[in-house]
Amino acid sequence: MTEDTPAPRRRGRPSREAASEGPDARTRILEAARTEFAERGYDKTSIRGIAKAAGVDAALVHHYYGTKDEVFAAAVEVTFEPALVIPAVLAGPPEALGERLARFFLSVWEDPATRSPLLAVLRSAVTHEAAANVLRDFVLRRLLERIAAELDVADPTFRAELAASHMIGIAMLRYVIRAEPLASADPEDIIAMVAPTLQRYVGDG
Amino acid sequence: MTEDTPAPRRRGRPSREAASEGPDARTRILEAARTEFAERGYDKTSIRGIAKAAGVDAALVHHYYGTKDEVFAAAVEVTFEPALVIPAVLAGPPEALGERLARFFLSVWEDPATRSPLLAVLRSAVTHEAAANVLRDFVLRRLLERIAAELDVADPTFRAELAASHMIGIAMLRYVIRAEPLASADPEDIIAMVAPTLQRYVGDG
Repeated sequence: MTEDTPAPRRRGRPSREAASEGPDARTRILEAARTEFAERGYDKTSIRGIAKAAGVDAALVHHYYGTKDEVFAAAVEVTFEPALVIPAVLAGPPEALGERLARFFLSVWEDPATRSPLLAVLRSAVTHEAAANVLRDFVLRRLLERIAAELDVADPTFRAELAASHMIGIAMLRYVIRAEPLASADPEDIIAMVAPTLQRYVGDG
Repeated sequence: MTEDTPAPRRRGRPSREAASEGPDARTRILEAARTEFAERGYDKTSIRGIAKAAGVDAALVHHYYGTKDEVFAAAVEVTFEPALVIPAVLAGPPEALGERLARFFLSVWEDPATRSPLLAVLRSAVTHEAAANVLRDFVLRRLLERIAAELDVADPTFRAELAASHMIGIAMLRYVIRAEPLASADPEDIIAMVAPTLQRYVGDG
Protein backbone atom coordinates (compact mmCIF):
# COMPACT_ATOMS: atom_id res chain seq x y z
CA MET A 1 0.00 0.00 0.00
CA THR A 2 3.01 2.29 0.40
CA GLU A 3 6.18 3.01 -1.59
CA ASP A 4 6.87 -0.59 -2.57
CA THR A 5 3.38 -1.39 -3.91
CA PRO A 6 3.85 -2.58 -7.49
CA ALA A 7 1.71 -1.44 -10.38
CA PRO A 8 -1.64 -3.27 -10.51
CA ARG A 9 -1.43 -6.59 -12.33
CA ARG A 10 -4.45 -7.87 -14.19
CA ARG A 11 -3.53 -11.38 -15.32
CA GLY A 12 -0.94 -14.15 -15.19
CA ARG A 13 1.08 -15.66 -12.36
CA PRO A 14 2.39 -13.40 -9.64
CA SER A 15 5.85 -12.08 -10.49
CA ARG A 16 8.52 -11.69 -7.86
CA GLU A 17 7.40 -8.07 -7.60
CA ALA A 18 3.81 -9.06 -6.85
CA ALA A 19 4.95 -11.52 -4.20
CA SER A 20 7.05 -8.72 -2.73
CA GLU A 21 3.85 -6.83 -1.91
CA GLY A 22 4.49 -8.84 1.22
CA PRO A 23 2.50 -8.61 4.43
CA ASP A 24 0.35 -5.74 3.19
CA ALA A 25 -1.08 -7.76 0.32
CA ARG A 26 -1.39 -10.88 2.49
CA THR A 27 -3.35 -8.92 5.07
CA ARG A 28 -5.51 -7.24 2.46
CA ILE A 29 -6.35 -10.62 0.93
CA LEU A 30 -7.31 -12.12 4.29
CA GLU A 31 -9.45 -9.12 5.18
CA ALA A 32 -11.13 -9.27 1.79
CA ALA A 33 -11.68 -13.03 2.17
CA ARG A 34 -13.21 -12.55 5.59
CA THR A 35 -15.57 -9.88 4.29
CA GLU A 36 -16.51 -11.79 1.13
CA PHE A 37 -17.25 -15.04 2.99
CA ALA A 38 -19.20 -13.12 5.65
CA GLU A 39 -21.29 -11.14 3.20
CA ARG A 40 -21.78 -13.60 0.34
CA GLY A 41 -21.55 -16.96 2.07
CA TYR A 42 -19.24 -19.83 1.24
CA ASP A 43 -20.96 -20.86 -1.94
CA LYS A 44 -20.99 -17.50 -3.69
CA THR A 45 -17.49 -16.43 -2.72
CA SER A 46 -14.76 -16.93 -5.33
CA ILE A 47 -10.99 -16.51 -5.38
CA ARG A 48 -11.56 -14.02 -8.20
CA GLY A 49 -13.99 -11.99 -6.07
CA ILE A 50 -11.61 -11.98 -3.12
CA ALA A 51 -8.75 -10.88 -5.38
CA LYS A 52 -10.84 -8.07 -6.81
CA ALA A 53 -11.89 -6.86 -3.35
CA ALA A 54 -8.26 -6.93 -2.20
CA GLY A 55 -7.04 -5.15 -5.33
CA VAL A 56 -4.67 -7.96 -6.29
CA ASP A 57 -4.40 -10.60 -8.97
CA ALA A 58 -6.26 -13.87 -8.36
CA ALA A 59 -2.96 -15.71 -8.83
CA LEU A 60 -1.57 -13.91 -5.80
CA VAL A 61 -4.45 -15.21 -3.67
CA HIS A 62 -3.59 -18.75 -4.83
CA HIS A 63 0.10 -18.05 -4.27
CA TYR A 64 -0.38 -17.07 -0.64
CA TYR A 65 -3.32 -19.20 0.46
CA GLY A 66 -3.91 -22.00 -2.06
CA THR A 67 -7.42 -23.25 -2.84
CA LYS A 68 -10.73 -21.63 -1.93
CA ASP A 69 -11.05 -24.06 1.00
CA GLU A 70 -7.63 -23.05 2.29
CA VAL A 71 -8.51 -19.37 1.95
CA PHE A 72 -11.72 -20.07 3.86
CA ALA A 73 -9.81 -21.81 6.67
CA ALA A 74 -7.31 -18.92 6.86
CA ALA A 75 -10.13 -16.37 6.90
CA VAL A 76 -11.88 -18.23 9.73
CA GLU A 77 -8.68 -18.55 11.74
CA VAL A 78 -7.71 -14.90 11.38
CA THR A 79 -11.11 -14.01 12.85
CA PHE A 80 -10.19 -15.13 16.31
CA GLU A 81 -6.43 -15.68 15.92
CA PRO A 82 -6.26 -18.97 17.82
CA ALA A 83 -2.48 -19.09 17.40
CA LEU A 84 -2.20 -16.00 19.55
CA VAL A 85 -5.13 -16.43 21.87
CA ILE A 86 -5.32 -20.13 22.67
CA PRO A 87 -1.90 -20.29 24.39
CA ALA A 88 -2.97 -17.35 26.55
CA VAL A 89 -6.25 -19.09 27.40
CA LEU A 90 -4.49 -22.35 28.20
CA ALA A 91 -1.90 -20.64 30.41
CA GLY A 92 -2.98 -19.77 33.92
CA PRO A 93 -4.42 -21.76 36.83
CA PRO A 94 -5.80 -25.12 35.58
CA GLU A 95 -8.75 -24.92 37.97
CA ALA A 96 -10.01 -21.80 36.12
CA LEU A 97 -9.50 -23.09 32.57
CA GLY A 98 -13.26 -23.60 32.10
CA GLU A 99 -13.89 -19.99 33.01
CA ARG A 100 -11.16 -18.70 30.68
CA LEU A 101 -12.57 -20.76 27.79
CA ALA A 102 -16.10 -19.48 28.40
CA ARG A 103 -14.87 -15.89 28.71
CA PHE A 104 -12.73 -16.06 25.57
CA PHE A 105 -15.51 -17.65 23.52
CA LEU A 106 -18.13 -15.10 24.59
CA SER A 107 -15.76 -12.15 24.06
CA VAL A 108 -15.18 -13.24 20.45
CA TRP A 109 -18.93 -13.54 19.83
CA GLU A 110 -19.84 -10.34 21.67
CA ASP A 111 -17.54 -8.26 19.44
CA PRO A 112 -19.53 -7.36 16.29
CA ALA A 113 -16.30 -7.31 14.23
CA THR A 114 -15.67 -11.01 14.91
CA ARG A 115 -19.30 -12.10 15.32
CA SER A 116 -20.26 -11.37 11.75
CA PRO A 117 -17.62 -13.61 10.10
CA LEU A 118 -18.29 -16.34 12.68
CA LEU A 119 -21.99 -16.24 11.88
CA ALA A 120 -21.05 -16.60 8.21
CA VAL A 121 -18.91 -19.63 9.05
CA LEU A 122 -21.73 -21.23 10.99
CA ARG A 123 -24.21 -20.56 8.16
CA SER A 124 -21.81 -21.91 5.56
CA ALA A 125 -21.01 -25.03 7.58
CA VAL A 126 -24.67 -25.85 8.11
CA THR A 127 -25.65 -25.41 4.48
CA HIS A 128 -22.55 -26.46 2.53
CA GLU A 129 -20.81 -29.78 2.94
CA ALA A 130 -17.50 -28.30 1.70
CA ALA A 131 -17.54 -25.53 4.30
CA ALA A 132 -18.42 -28.06 7.02
CA ASN A 133 -15.45 -30.15 5.94
CA VAL A 134 -13.07 -27.19 6.10
CA LEU A 135 -14.37 -26.19 9.50
CA ARG A 136 -13.97 -29.78 10.72
CA ASP A 137 -10.64 -30.71 9.12
CA PHE A 138 -8.74 -27.46 9.40
CA VAL A 139 -10.15 -25.11 11.98
CA LEU A 140 -11.85 -27.28 14.58
CA ARG A 141 -9.39 -30.17 14.51
CA ARG A 142 -6.40 -27.85 14.97
CA LEU A 143 -8.17 -25.92 17.70
CA LEU A 144 -9.35 -29.00 19.59
CA GLU A 145 -5.99 -30.75 19.31
CA ARG A 146 -4.20 -27.68 20.57
CA ILE A 147 -6.48 -27.55 23.61
CA ALA A 148 -6.55 -31.33 24.11
CA ALA A 149 -2.73 -31.45 24.15
CA GLU A 150 -2.79 -29.39 27.33
CA LEU A 151 -5.41 -31.43 29.15
CA ASP A 152 -4.50 -33.96 31.80
CA VAL A 153 -7.63 -36.10 31.37
CA ALA A 154 -8.67 -39.33 29.63
CA ASP A 155 -10.14 -38.77 26.12
CA PRO A 156 -8.95 -35.14 25.96
CA THR A 157 -10.18 -34.52 22.40
CA PHE A 158 -13.64 -35.92 23.19
CA ARG A 159 -13.82 -33.70 26.27
CA ALA A 160 -12.55 -30.63 24.43
CA GLU A 161 -15.20 -31.32 21.80
CA LEU A 162 -17.99 -31.57 24.38
CA ALA A 163 -16.87 -28.20 25.76
CA ALA A 164 -16.83 -26.78 22.22
CA SER A 165 -20.28 -28.22 21.52
CA HIS A 166 -21.74 -26.37 24.50
CA MET A 167 -20.23 -23.07 23.37
CA ILE A 168 -21.35 -23.56 19.76
CA GLY A 169 -24.87 -24.31 21.00
CA ILE A 170 -24.87 -21.14 23.09
CA ALA A 171 -23.82 -19.18 19.99
CA MET A 172 -26.71 -20.78 18.07
CA LEU A 173 -29.35 -19.90 20.68
CA ARG A 174 -27.99 -16.49 21.69
CA TYR A 175 -26.82 -15.00 18.39
CA VAL A 176 -28.57 -16.94 15.61
CA ILE A 177 -31.98 -17.94 17.00
CA ARG A 178 -31.89 -15.22 19.67
CA ALA A 179 -33.95 -17.16 22.18
CA GLU A 180 -34.74 -15.39 25.42
CA PRO A 181 -33.64 -15.13 28.18
CA LEU A 182 -30.26 -16.32 26.84
CA ALA A 183 -30.12 -13.72 24.05
CA SER A 184 -30.29 -10.81 26.51
CA ALA A 185 -28.46 -12.39 29.42
CA ASP A 186 -25.42 -10.62 30.87
CA PRO A 187 -22.29 -12.42 29.57
CA GLU A 188 -21.08 -12.70 33.16
CA ASP A 189 -24.23 -14.62 34.13
CA ILE A 190 -23.63 -17.04 31.27
CA ILE A 191 -19.97 -17.45 32.21
CA ALA A 192 -20.93 -18.09 35.83
CA MET A 193 -23.24 -20.94 34.80
CA VAL A 194 -21.20 -22.43 31.98
CA ALA A 195 -17.65 -22.23 33.41
CA PRO A 196 -18.17 -25.11 35.89
CA THR A 197 -19.52 -27.29 33.05
CA LEU A 198 -16.49 -26.61 30.86
CA GLN A 199 -14.22 -27.13 33.86
CA ARG A 200 -15.81 -30.53 34.43
CA TYR A 201 -15.00 -31.51 30.83
CA VAL A 202 -11.48 -30.14 30.57
CA GLY A 203 -10.35 -30.36 34.17
CA ASP A 204 -11.63 -33.63 35.66
CA GLY A 205 -9.71 -36.89 35.45
CA MET B 1 -58.19 -42.10 1.67
CA THR B 2 -60.98 -44.65 2.10
CA GLU B 3 -64.72 -44.61 1.49
CA ASP B 4 -65.32 -41.10 2.82
CA THR B 5 -62.57 -39.36 0.81
CA PRO B 6 -64.26 -36.62 -1.21
CA ALA B 7 -63.54 -36.00 -4.87
CA PRO B 8 -60.35 -33.97 -5.43
CA ARG B 9 -60.93 -30.23 -5.21
CA ARG B 10 -58.78 -27.89 -7.25
CA ARG B 11 -59.67 -24.40 -6.04
CA GLY B 12 -61.67 -22.34 -3.57
CA ARG B 13 -62.23 -22.59 0.17
CA PRO B 14 -62.54 -26.00 1.74
CA SER B 15 -66.14 -27.13 1.83
CA ARG B 16 -67.60 -28.97 4.78
CA GLU B 17 -66.87 -32.16 2.83
CA ALA B 18 -63.20 -31.32 2.45
CA ALA B 19 -62.90 -30.49 6.14
CA SER B 20 -64.51 -33.84 6.85
CA GLU B 21 -61.51 -35.58 5.33
CA GLY B 22 -60.60 -35.33 9.00
CA PRO B 23 -57.57 -36.88 10.60
CA ASP B 24 -56.40 -38.58 7.40
CA ALA B 25 -56.03 -35.32 5.53
CA ARG B 26 -54.53 -33.57 8.57
CA THR B 27 -51.93 -36.29 8.92
CA ARG B 28 -51.19 -36.34 5.19
CA ILE B 29 -50.67 -32.57 5.22
CA LEU B 30 -48.29 -32.72 8.17
CA GLU B 31 -46.31 -35.58 6.65
CA ALA B 32 -46.12 -33.70 3.36
CA ALA B 33 -45.04 -30.51 5.16
CA ARG B 34 -42.33 -32.37 7.03
CA THR B 35 -41.01 -33.89 3.81
CA GLU B 36 -41.21 -30.66 1.83
CA PHE B 37 -39.44 -28.58 4.49
CA ALA B 38 -36.80 -31.30 4.93
CA GLU B 39 -36.09 -31.71 1.24
CA ARG B 40 -36.54 -28.19 -0.10
CA GLY B 41 -35.69 -26.02 2.90
CA TYR B 42 -37.82 -23.35 4.50
CA ASP B 43 -37.42 -20.80 1.74
CA LYS B 44 -38.46 -22.96 -1.19
CA THR B 45 -41.37 -24.68 0.51
CA SER B 46 -44.83 -23.30 -0.22
CA ILE B 47 -48.32 -24.02 1.05
CA ARG B 48 -49.22 -24.84 -2.54
CA GLY B 49 -46.37 -27.39 -2.77
CA ILE B 50 -47.37 -28.99 0.52
CA ALA B 51 -51.00 -29.20 -0.60
CA LYS B 52 -49.97 -30.81 -3.88
CA ALA B 53 -47.76 -33.38 -2.13
CA ALA B 54 -50.60 -34.19 0.28
CA GLY B 55 -53.16 -34.43 -2.52
CA VAL B 56 -55.40 -31.74 -1.02
CA ASP B 57 -56.42 -28.21 -1.81
CA ALA B 58 -54.11 -25.42 -0.58
CA ALA B 59 -57.09 -23.90 1.23
CA LEU B 60 -57.35 -27.03 3.34
CA VAL B 61 -53.73 -26.58 4.48
CA HIS B 62 -54.60 -23.02 5.53
CA HIS B 63 -57.79 -24.25 7.14
CA TYR B 64 -56.01 -26.76 9.38
CA TYR B 65 -52.66 -25.10 10.02
CA GLY B 66 -52.82 -21.41 9.07
CA THR B 67 -49.82 -19.58 7.62
CA LYS B 68 -46.64 -21.12 6.25
CA ASP B 69 -44.90 -20.31 9.53
CA GLU B 70 -47.59 -22.13 11.49
CA VAL B 71 -47.34 -25.13 9.18
CA PHE B 72 -43.57 -25.07 9.70
CA ALA B 73 -44.01 -25.03 13.49
CA ALA B 74 -46.51 -27.91 13.33
CA ALA B 75 -44.19 -29.91 11.06
CA VAL B 76 -41.27 -29.41 13.44
CA GLU B 77 -43.34 -30.37 16.46
CA VAL B 78 -44.74 -33.52 14.89
CA THR B 79 -41.16 -34.65 14.28
CA PHE B 80 -40.48 -35.35 17.90
CA GLU B 81 -44.00 -35.07 19.36
CA PRO B 82 -43.07 -33.05 22.45
CA ALA B 83 -46.66 -33.13 23.67
CA LEU B 84 -46.38 -36.89 24.06
CA VAL B 85 -42.74 -37.25 24.93
CA ILE B 86 -41.86 -34.34 27.19
CA PRO B 87 -44.27 -35.35 29.99
CA ALA B 88 -42.73 -38.83 29.93
CA VAL B 89 -39.23 -37.35 30.09
CA LEU B 90 -40.19 -35.03 32.93
CA ALA B 91 -41.84 -37.81 34.92
CA GLY B 92 -39.52 -40.06 36.90
CA PRO B 93 -36.85 -39.49 39.54
CA PRO B 94 -35.77 -35.80 39.54
CA GLU B 95 -32.14 -36.76 40.15
CA ALA B 96 -32.03 -38.55 36.77
CA LEU B 97 -33.79 -35.84 34.73
CA GLY B 98 -30.50 -34.80 33.09
CA GLU B 99 -29.93 -38.33 31.89
CA ARG B 100 -33.48 -38.68 30.57
CA LEU B 101 -33.15 -35.41 28.65
CA ALA B 102 -29.81 -36.45 27.13
CA ARG B 103 -31.18 -39.89 26.21
CA PHE B 104 -34.36 -38.51 24.66
CA PHE B 105 -32.49 -35.91 22.66
CA LEU B 106 -29.93 -38.37 21.28
CA SER B 107 -32.60 -40.97 20.46
CA VAL B 108 -34.46 -38.41 18.33
CA TRP B 109 -31.27 -37.47 16.46
CA GLU B 110 -30.02 -41.05 16.09
CA ASP B 111 -33.22 -42.09 14.30
CA PRO B 112 -32.77 -41.25 10.58
CA ALA B 113 -36.53 -40.68 10.22
CA THR B 114 -36.47 -37.79 12.70
CA ARG B 115 -32.88 -36.65 12.08
CA SER B 116 -33.52 -35.56 8.52
CA PRO B 117 -36.34 -33.10 9.29
CA LEU B 118 -34.43 -31.80 12.32
CA LEU B 119 -31.39 -31.13 10.15
CA ALA B 120 -33.67 -29.24 7.80
CA VAL B 121 -34.98 -27.17 10.70
CA LEU B 122 -31.47 -26.34 11.84
CA ARG B 123 -30.42 -25.38 8.30
CA SER B 124 -33.51 -23.25 7.83
CA ALA B 125 -33.10 -21.50 11.18
CA VAL B 126 -29.46 -20.65 10.49
CA THR B 127 -30.10 -19.27 7.02
CA HIS B 128 -33.59 -17.75 7.23
CA GLU B 129 -34.66 -15.20 9.77
CA ALA B 130 -38.30 -16.25 9.43
CA ALA B 131 -37.53 -19.88 10.21
CA ALA B 132 -35.37 -18.84 13.17
CA ASN B 133 -38.29 -16.78 14.46
CA VAL B 134 -40.69 -19.70 14.18
CA LEU B 135 -38.27 -22.03 15.90
CA ARG B 136 -37.77 -19.47 18.67
CA ASP B 137 -41.34 -18.23 19.17
CA PHE B 138 -43.29 -21.42 18.68
CA VAL B 139 -41.22 -24.55 19.07
CA LEU B 140 -38.40 -23.65 21.44
CA ARG B 141 -40.38 -21.33 23.71
CA ARG B 142 -43.16 -23.88 24.20
CA LEU B 143 -40.65 -26.66 24.76
CA LEU B 144 -38.51 -24.70 27.21
CA GLU B 145 -41.49 -23.36 29.12
CA ARG B 146 -42.95 -26.84 29.44
CA ILE B 147 -39.67 -28.11 30.88
CA ALA B 148 -39.01 -25.00 32.98
CA ALA B 149 -42.47 -25.30 34.59
CA GLU B 150 -41.36 -28.57 36.16
CA LEU B 151 -38.02 -27.34 37.49
CA ASP B 152 -37.53 -26.42 41.10
CA VAL B 153 -34.64 -24.01 40.49
CA ALA B 154 -34.04 -20.26 40.17
CA ASP B 155 -34.17 -18.98 36.56
CA PRO B 156 -35.70 -22.23 35.24
CA THR B 157 -36.07 -21.02 31.63
CA PHE B 158 -32.46 -19.80 31.52
CA ARG B 159 -31.29 -23.15 32.87
CA ALA B 160 -33.49 -25.15 30.51
CA GLU B 161 -32.05 -23.06 27.68
CA LEU B 162 -28.47 -23.74 28.71
CA ALA B 163 -29.27 -27.47 28.72
CA ALA B 164 -30.87 -27.10 25.28
CA SER B 165 -27.87 -25.15 23.99
CA HIS B 166 -25.54 -28.01 24.92
CA MET B 167 -27.69 -30.56 23.11
CA ILE B 168 -28.07 -28.35 20.03
CA GLY B 169 -24.28 -27.89 19.95
CA ILE B 170 -23.78 -31.66 20.16
CA ALA B 171 -26.17 -32.07 17.22
CA MET B 172 -24.15 -29.48 15.27
CA LEU B 173 -20.80 -31.18 15.88
CA ARG B 174 -21.96 -34.80 15.68
CA TYR B 175 -24.50 -34.72 12.84
CA VAL B 176 -23.82 -31.56 10.82
CA ILE B 177 -20.07 -30.95 11.01
CA ARG B 178 -19.34 -34.59 11.91
CA ALA B 179 -16.27 -33.80 13.97
CA GLU B 180 -14.44 -36.78 15.43
CA PRO B 181 -14.37 -38.39 17.92
CA LEU B 182 -17.86 -37.07 18.76
CA ALA B 183 -19.36 -38.10 15.42
CA SER B 184 -18.51 -41.79 15.95
CA ALA B 185 -18.87 -41.90 19.73
CA ASP B 186 -21.24 -44.43 21.28
CA PRO B 187 -24.42 -42.59 22.32
CA GLU B 188 -24.06 -44.11 25.79
CA ASP B 189 -20.61 -42.53 26.19
CA ILE B 190 -22.06 -39.15 25.25
CA ILE B 191 -24.97 -39.59 27.65
CA ALA B 192 -22.58 -40.59 30.46
CA MET B 193 -20.59 -37.35 30.01
CA VAL B 194 -23.45 -34.97 29.28
CA ALA B 195 -26.13 -36.17 31.74
CA PRO B 196 -24.35 -34.70 34.81
CA THR B 197 -24.05 -31.35 33.01
CA LEU B 198 -27.76 -31.25 32.20
CA GLN B 199 -28.56 -32.40 35.71
CA ARG B 200 -26.52 -29.47 37.07
CA TYR B 201 -28.62 -27.06 35.00
CA VAL B 202 -32.07 -28.52 35.57
CA GLY B 203 -31.61 -30.07 39.00
CA ASP B 204 -29.55 -27.71 41.18
CA GLY B 205 -31.06 -24.95 43.27
